[in-house]
Amino acid sequence: MSDYVEGRTRWWGWGNLDQRFDVENRENIMPFMRESLGMPLNRDRFTDPSLEEIELPEPRLHEEVLEALRRLCGPGNVATDKFQRVSHSMGKSYRDLLRFRQRRIERPVDAVVWPREEREIVEILRLAEQENLAVIPFGGGSSVTGGVEPMGDKAGYISLDMARMNRVLRVDATSQTALIQAGALGPELEEQLNAQGFTLGHFPESFDHSTLGGWLATRASGRQSTGYGDIEDMVLALRMVTPRGVVDTRKVPSSAAGPSILQLCVGSEGYMGVITEALMRIRPVPEVLDYRGLIFRNFAAGVSAIREMMQQNLIPTCVRLSDRTETALAQAFRSTTGPVWKKKGEEAVLRLLARRGYSFDDGAFMVLGLEGTEDEVDYLRANILRLCRRLGGFHLGTSPGRQWYKSRHETAYFREQLINWGVLVDTLETATTWDNLLHLYGEVRRAIREALEEGGNRSLVACHVSHAYREGASLYYTFFAPMAGEGEEEAQWERVKRAASEAIMEHGGTISHHHGVGYEHAPWMREEVGEVSIRALQAVKKAMDPADIMNPGKLLPP
Amino acid sequence: MSDYVEGRTRWWGWGNLDQRFDVENRENIMPFMRESLGMPLNRDRFTDPSLEEIELPEPRLHEEVLEALRRLCGPGNVATDKFQRVSHSMGKSYRDLLRFRQRRIERPVDAVVWPREEREIVEILRLAEQENLAVIPFGGGSSVTGGVEPMGDKAGYISLDMARMNRVLRVDATSQTALIQAGALGPELEEQLNAQGFTLGHFPESFDHSTLGGWLATRASGRQSTGYGDIEDMVLALRMVTPRGVVDTRKVPSSAAGPSILQLCVGSEGYMGVITEALMRIRPVPEVLDYRGLIFRNFAAGVSAIREMMQQNLIPTCVRLSDRTETALAQAFRSTTGPVWKKKGEEAVLRLLARRGYSFDDGAFMVLGLEGTEDEVDYLRANILRLCRRLGGFHLGTSPGRQWYKSRHETAYFREQLINWGVLVDTLETATTWDNLLHLYGEVRRAIREALEEGGNRSLVACHVSHAYREGASLYYTFFAPMAGEGEEEAQWERVKRAASEAIMEHGGTISHHHGVGYEHAPWMREEVGEVSIRALQAVKKAMDPADIMNPGKLLPP
Repeated sequence: MSDYVEGRTRWWGWGNLDQRFDVENRENIMPFMRESLGMPLNRDRFTDPSLEEIELPEPRLHEEVLEALRRLCGPGNVATDKFQRVSHSMGKSYRDLLRFRQRRIERPVDAVVWPREEREIVEILRLAEQENLAVIPFGGGSSVTGGVEPMGDKAGYISLDMARMNRVLRVDATSQTALIQAGALGPELEEQLNAQGFTLGHFPESFDHSTLGGWLATRASGRQSTGYGDIEDMVLALRMVTPRGVVDTRKVPSSAAGPSILQLCVGSEGYMGVITEALMRIRPVPEVLDYRGLIFRNFAAGVSAIREMMQQNLIPTCVRLSDRTETALAQAFRSTTGPVWKKKGEEAVLRLLARRGYSFDDGAFMVLGLEGTEDEVDYLRANILRLCRRLGGFHLGTSPGRQWYKSRHETAYFREQLINWGVLVDTLETATTWDNLLHLYGEVRRAIREALEEGGNRSLVACHVSHAYREGASLYYTFFAPMAGEGEEEAQWERVKRAASEAIMEHGGTISHHHGVGYEHAPWMREEVGEVSIRALQAVKKAMDPADIMNPGKLLPP
Repeated sequence: MSDYVEGRTRWWGWGNLDQRFDVENRENIMPFMRESLGMPLNRDRFTDPSLEEIELPEPRLHEEVLEALRRLCGPGNVATDKFQRVSHSMGKSYRDLLRFRQRRIERPVDAVVWPREEREIVEILRLAEQENLAVIPFGGGSSVTGGVEPMGDKAGYISLDMARMNRVLRVDATSQTALIQAGALGPELEEQLNAQGFTLGHFPESFDHSTLGGWLATRASGRQSTGYGDIEDMVLALRMVTPRGVVDTRKVPSSAAGPSILQLCVGSEGYMGVITEALMRIRPVPEVLDYRGLIFRNFAAGVSAIREMMQQNLIPTCVRLSDRTETALAQAFRSTTGPVWKKKGEEAVLRLLARRGYSFDDGAFMVLGLEGTEDEVDYLRANILRLCRRLGGFHLGTSPGRQWYKSRHETAYFREQLINWGVLVDTLETATTWDNLLHLYGEVRRAIREALEEGGNRSLVACHVSHAYREGASLYYTFFAPMAGEGEEEAQWERVKRAASEAIMEHGGTISHHHGVGYEHAPWMREEVGEVSIRALQAVKKAMDPADIMNPGKLLPP
């Protein structure tokens, strides 16, 4: 049900306590990082915090309010204990992970409530409005934009954890749609759909720790979005409880009945209401999962290959192209255990590649994933590999593809370790059209690097293209640098974030392709959508939530 | 440039004066209609009106206002003459065509203005707000929902004809996008795109007489939307001038920066602002256009075939399936001229079909259109025909497909003739998911028929499935009945419209799949989107157009 169980959850960081980054079987990664960053990486700058070390003020909710919530949702579904309050007060951004390690929970929620049905949510919002309390919808808590953190100056803050509303209510095999409650975590909804032969096809990095409602509220994209679509393409209809009533859009595949209310709720980040359920497009579980690796001589050649596949209607399920730095990083990241013959084989491949002018130090590595019926996958594989070959791509077979697929959720755990060692590590993403892609890539990369290297630091700025469309794609950056001195860490990160965001806006990107807005990106929203649109969104907010109880301080610029 | 030229344009109806329905070469259609409707069809109930017969009040705009408009847009771009005022005061709905023939222009616009650039529109809106004038954006004037007709009680009404802003500003062949001005008519923008090897792929029935801005403002769908997408899927970004500033969405393929402002403007029907240009997805002009006919033993079998194609990722560019009545109507509608051998051949085919259990009196005719590269079309044709055969579809070859393609814009002209003969003739459309399609089909059909046959009339209610999606499709009804007595015509039509709309809403459809809202569908919007959404849209309106000068009285329920 809920992700948040004391003693099991790494509440100050990513995932569960029984999972951590396996550095022992990767003998190349530490030398690579040490050399790239020019720092030792063997001393703990931070230690994992314990609950005892965290100081929290008393919850500010009156006992009558708590009692009313208990009557409404059942006594076991209202919590004010430290573990629940702390774990619901921040998300998983670099800034969050830093503050957790600094034992700084500056804006804790006062209570966590787990509604069991929509009716209860209606009543909670009514109570909250009466008592001037804020309500922050909470899915899996994986936000990296500050989406679940209290803001503003309400009389109290309730984290509305949707974990109890996690069922697939109806599968319509004829229309290939499913009505799903918003609180279902990725694995929960996939399990229920799989049992009937279907999949949603939405697999973000946060899959294990995020929910349908969270995906919809933040316009998320899964790693297979090139084939299955972004979450906003997968949703046919939804229900959203606002303080002024329930939005319930028509369950039809398409409509010309005015502006899209559906697409006004998608991306609303809990700022106007709580998404409670949605009618989602689903697909048969694919017969075949075919993941492969290719290497291109350079990034530009690989970008052309992705563009051509998309424009020739040869749509892969997943395609990712790493730039030179990320290619080298991924190579260093690979597991080095295994039998000697395997290593020898790999070395032979590298020599062969080198003779043909390819290198993992200087090339662009591509993951190509195809999912579907055998016929579909055969057709796509043949045509896409031919196209890639024509553009200089070298096919490395299924092994690197499988390896990526297997370890695709592990980097998040590496971050936990790096932060403790005193490394600034973060990601950010944007999107643009093909004609602007390489330009934007270079400008944002330069901005991040210059900001990271201020004061003589070394840095590592890696990037990949993913989430491809016919007209363009997203750019996803991962970057590392030695952390600034004590007390300076947040300011250092803010400088980098500002530099990257300014470059994105100046050079034709969007402030976020799939991370959402929260409060981290809110300052850029005026430039992103313009003044009239900001006023329109404020007006919608006022119409749906005049008392500003829903997730205040998010989405719109201060 | 503009469609509206005196002496060339059938201002009281559809299209140009040099085009009319060719009844002479279709010897079966008149007997079929006479028998179906039980009426003679040889006496003119109405005659085409002449401008002299139309009485208009003086324009209510002060000379200073007109002078200001002339200074702004040039003296040749402001008109108050009868032809321009009359032809800009109504659209092309049955109600409109009826009133034109009754010489009733009850709510004329006072002036028509043709801005040449966005800056002029900004100034026109400023002036209008100052003077309490309404501004009605006008594209091609083909609205069938009352979208361009003056409503409310402003001090005067300006029709803002976008015809001068009809250029493709930029084609980006790399990203396959084009920046296009909103006033471009279908043929104008296709011509400019074709010159560079591209097409937009949006071909609604109104193609010759409607504009990009109109398509976007009403969420239109072209007849090839199954392959190319609805207009809302084709747009990446747009600019919309509102009285409070210009909305200008980011030119990116996808974004997670909050609710979709883009999809809030799409479908806004001139009620919040004037769409001036849009960045549209474009595609290479297809190498092959392959249109074919098939016949199924019944409607349900054909519906299954469409559903299966979509769900097996065998997406045709265009697919339409006629019910029994429409199949018979289409057969009667076919040209009967041509050499004797052709007729003999057709008769032989019919005999063969009859022996296998197929009939045009009792079957379901399908048009299947495939466009793309030769390879794509070959792949789709082979797989789709195999799928159809398995479901009992009989392949009739390319001739019926070509015939449909050739005559697909002619029925609109037939309507002109029928109304003059005293026939109520109208169309309406909705959409739903596959699981509900046959149910909704039957309920709406029954509602229309019962309303038409009130008082003992005969009627003809035909329907086709088109605009298919993986999850469902649209239903498009065309219906005919003897017109009610003099003075009763509008009330008769309103009864039918109300009955159909109630059935649509009760049985899970949407009030419009691609005709839009205007004022005809506005009364159903509360049920369509719910009270909170109505308030949200009113709030957006107020934020963008506080003085309610933009197309007042449309989109939202009174």
